[in-house]
Amino acid sequence: MSAPISGKAIKRLILYHYILSDCLLKENEYISSQQIAELLKIDDSQVRKDIALCAASGKSNVGYNTKELKKSIEQLLGFKAQKAAFILGAGNLGSALAKHADFADYGLDIAALFDNDPAKIDTLLNGKKIYPLSELYHVATHEQLVNKRKVEIAILTVPASAAQSSAELLVRAQIKYIWNFTPVVLSVPEDVRVCNENLIGNFLDFTND
Amino acid sequence: MSAPISGKAIKRLILYHYILSDCLLKENEYISSQQIAELLKIDDSQVRKDIALCAASGKSNVGYNTKELKKSIEQLLGFKAQKAAFILGAGNLGSALAKHADFADYGLDIAALFDNDPAKIDTLLNGKKIYPLSELYHVATHEQLVNKRKVEIAILTVPASAAQSSAELLVRAQIKYIWNFTPVVLSVPEDVRVCNENLIGNFLDFTND
Repeated sequence: MSAPISGKAIKRLILYHYILSDCLLKENEYISSQQIAELLKIDDSQVRKDIALCAASGKSNVGYNTKELKKSIEQLLGFKAQKAAFILGAGNLGSALAKHADFADYGLDIAALFDNDPAKIDTLLNGKKIYPLSELYHVATHEQLVNKRKVEIAILTVPASAAQSSAELLVRAQIKYIWNFTPVVLSVPEDVRVCNENLIGNFLDFTND
Repeated sequence: MSAPISGKAIKRLILYHYILSDCLLKENEYISSQQIAELLKIDDSQVRKDIALCAASGKSNVGYNTKELKKSIEQLLGFKAQKAAFILGAGNLGSALAKHADFADYGLDIAALFDNDPAKIDTLLNGKKIYPLSELYHVATHEQLVNKRKVEIAILTVPASAAQSSAELLVRAQIKYIWNFTPVVLSVPEDVRVCNENLIGNFLDFTND
């Protein structure tokens, strides 16, 4: 890949991908940048600029070929590169994310879940086993040695009171990306990246007119 | 309120609020802008600028009073102004959001849920009743006439195939804000605001190093 794509562009491209998937369902063969822009209430020139990143070209009067543009976005964003992740916390939100059908389509593969509730341990959720949190290091090592894959992503949905101690387990298990759904700001070493999924902040921003 | 606060500032202030809540639990009476900045790996001057929005003042050497700063942020962002919302789709994610303990703390009150699964209809989830989607307009009217509150926010967690038709029900029920967790770009009138909770986009942006 050439120049890195900005986070904002990635997020817009995912929305274009949603629109294109819907167009394919409806058997619309072509779509114009104006149609995309109108749906998203953004500027047409922005859409054309983003699509130019995919090196896709539209035809005047008819627009872009839906199927081709969808494939171009997938290649650009590397959906097909599977990324394995652990989920810590098999409560409501963790379970919902584990069952989130779209994640697999976009390259996120849940390797295993972890929880401290004895009733949940050793059960399966969406075909994935739930382990006690104390086995995190062991499972991560097993994935690397036996399954030949390094799990570098963790989704954190434990209760707030367990968030920091869970983050420390993750650091020890050499997790490099923590997708944090807890309302806790985690203290982690410099080389571990945390993405705070700040639902409350999004909500307050959105409804703050 | 004076000048509007930017979305980015709101999201940072929520994270400061998380940190302050944690400090209070640990009985830390003071916190400095540097400590906050280090936890979030952002610039100290940014933290001071954001905190200045709350008109809170720190003391040199000791920093900000944790309790006072927490209260100032709450006042600034209006946490205490309750906002009522409907959840459409009582599946995994909808249920998780309905049970999300933090939402209530930050002013989001779930008024009712809606789903088309006969097994779920008329049951309670976290004390809130689940209605069939066809009753949305009726329930919204009832809230306004009988409970004297206008529900203007909807959280959309239905399957992708039901997203657009659900959005149309929401428009008819005079919902003004749709918090969209589905992988569908909704087509709605100009005066309805949609916030796309683009989890896939966040994930790809975050792990796209």
